Amino acid sequence: MAEQRTFASLDEIRALLRELPGPDLETGAAAAERQARLTKPAGSLGRLEDLAQWLATWQGRHPPQIERPYAAVFAGNHGVAARGVSAYPAAVTKQMVQNFIAGGAAVNQLCGLADADLRVYEMALEEPTRDFTEAPAMDEEACVRALAYGMMAVEQGIDVLALGEMGIGNTTSAAAICCALYGGPAADWVGRGTGVDDEGLVRKTAVVEQAVAMHRETLGEAMSDPFEVLRCLGGLEIAAIAGAVMAARLARTPVVLDGYTCTAAAAVLHAADPRALDHCLVAHRSAEPGHRHLLEKLQQEPLLDLGMRLGEASGAMLAVLLLKAACACHSGMATFDEAGVSGPG
Amino acid sequence: MAEQRTFASLDEIRALLRELPGPDLETGAAAAERQARLTKPAGSLGRLEDLAQWLATWQGRHPPQIERPYAAVFAGNHGVAARGVSAYPAAVTKQMVQNFIAGGAAVNQLCGLADADLRVYEMALEEPTRDFTEAPAMDEEACVRALAYGMMAVEQGIDVLALGEMGIGNTTSAAAICCALYGGPAADWVGRGTGVDDEGLVRKTAVVEQAVAMHRETLGEAMSDPFEVLRCLGGLEIAAIAGAVMAARLARTPVVLDGYTCTAAAAVLHAADPRALDHCLVAHRSAEPGHRHLLEKLQQEPLLDLGMRLGEASGAMLAVLLLKAACACHSGMATFDEAGVSGPG
Repeated sequence: MAEQRTFASLDEIRALLRELPGPDLETGAAAAERQARLTKPAGSLGRLEDLAQWLATWQGRHPPQIERPYAAVFAGNHGVAARGVSAYPAAVTKQMVQNFIAGGAAVNQLCGLADADLRVYEMALEEPTRDFTEAPAMDEEACVRALAYGMMAVEQGIDVLALGEMGIGNTTSAAAICCALYGGPAADWVGRGTGVDDEGLVRKTAVVEQAVAMHRETLGEAMSDPFEVLRCLGGLEIAAIAGAVMAARLARTPVVLDGYTCTAAAAVLHAADPRALDHCLVAHRSAEPGHRHLLEKLQQEPLLDLGMRLGEASGAMLAVLLLKAACACHSGMATFDEAGVSGPG
Repeated sequence: MAEQRTFASLDEIRALLRELPGPDLETGAAAAERQARLTKPAGSLGRLEDLAQWLATWQGRHPPQIERPYAAVFAGNHGVAARGVSAYPAAVTKQMVQNFIAGGAAVNQLCGLADADLRVYEMALEEPTRDFTEAPAMDEEACVRALAYGMMAVEQGIDVLALGEMGIGNTTSAAAICCALYGGPAADWVGRGTGVDDEGLVRKTAVVEQAVAMHRETLGEAMSDPFEVLRCLGGLEIAAIAGAVMAARLARTPVVLDGYTCTAAAAVLHAADPRALDHCLVAHRSAEPGHRHLLEKLQQEPLLDLGMRLGEASGAMLAVLLLKAACACHSGMATFDEAGVSGPG
């Protein structure tokens, strides 16, 4: 784990967000220049070329490399799970954490394939956040602590950070965050998550609608602040992901976001500062329908669209394979000159 | 290389196509049954679940495995290249073969990443096919020989075969094949390939239009036979790919098709028998616009859509990474029972 930062308030987090470093345009330009000389028609590797340049830009080095990919999966429990918004009981969060530790989950297999380190962060599973239909999910102290905990997960020297989550009830939290940040009917943001039936879907939609309305009424103007949205409607693992995204920027570590819940966590930062996610890409378009709307708001075009909706950084690790492919081509291919291949014309 | 088959005529190839084995429904069902017990909500790995089942079905074994992926890249030269249909001179085909052998091309890096064997098959580069605006590209003997050559490339024991090609001018050939198989204006099937300018695109479109019209007039009814289309408008590497697809089916080796030219080669078989490509998937949607139309005709939904248009099995090798991911999850994940994770409800 990295050094622990301490923050006294959300204001200190807001201040840190304003200080995040920008892109390294020099290393990005060096990558673009090399791409133009590699033995392929210009642009013919499509997004793999963009990825190599993006990695160079946000790693601040050329050539970019992914020798040490890293997956961080945060697990938290949600008071709102008691409202019957998930197809699974809340006990599954803990059981799945044990499955991650034992190596039996999807993300374990995918990390093995990508030769990535996997760390699972269990966040007080016996103490779920409060049911946000009744009260803010977290008080300020808990929210700040969760953000700081996520920051701690970003070690130095990670080449790319794949973020993921586990938490029964957390697509309800994601939907509520999106609904509060972007408006629109709750139904636009709510999906079946792990697979609730029609009745459960109606219940989940009503929960999101009521919760957002309730907090808007209670907080008034303050709900226009994205960190207040996070505090009222988020969860511990969601706050931790937002923290990890910030810490990765400070450490010059590009980030791969997983599915709906993970992207919703990052959206809190984007709503506070649209530049906050420039070092992030979204791995895949989740089958969860709210993700499509969210990606439009973030103007993010995901790399993959495989109908996945598992979470736990599973989609993010697939995207890491594509990033490795982009790096391998960028660094390993011969130039036209080296290979004695004729250019166009 | 596998044992060499000899064929006296295209009729013998047509006969072989009728004898291709069907799916192994038993191993496919075993895969579906296991998927339902793995520690994830049903269907939440999306297409990765379908891929595991598809691999089991066409490998004829459960669990499916990809320990030995294999890329076969066929290179050929095209008489029609003299018509100014490519941004690159025909000499580049040979130069790129040398680049493959030296390890400097994109596909070399991607095979390294996927731990795949790469074989490059150079097909008489000094003797291009005839310019198909003037005469059939191949006589029957040459076409049959190229098909048989492609069959030879399929060794026993390959877990998945990624097919690719290299050949200056071959997107013109691919467009002509598609136009002859499916009709419609030539402009629907022609794109910029390696990057021809506007003038080159007009020239390329006219070449395809004229060639298809000319062969239709000369051959009459016979042009409704897909193998005649291949002979008149194809190329050596394109015929070889069609042969390799057939041989892979006989060897119970699932196939990953690359981009436009590779898919057009396989489309010849599909036009002759719609079941012929059931053991194939298309890796990615090429940026070449004709590929989109072709995928609709084949009712294939590619795995990736990354704006690539390089050929040489580069997209296919990315898809192999996803197949490896599907196998890793399928074989390595714990079941609900094994992990002590509660099911829904």
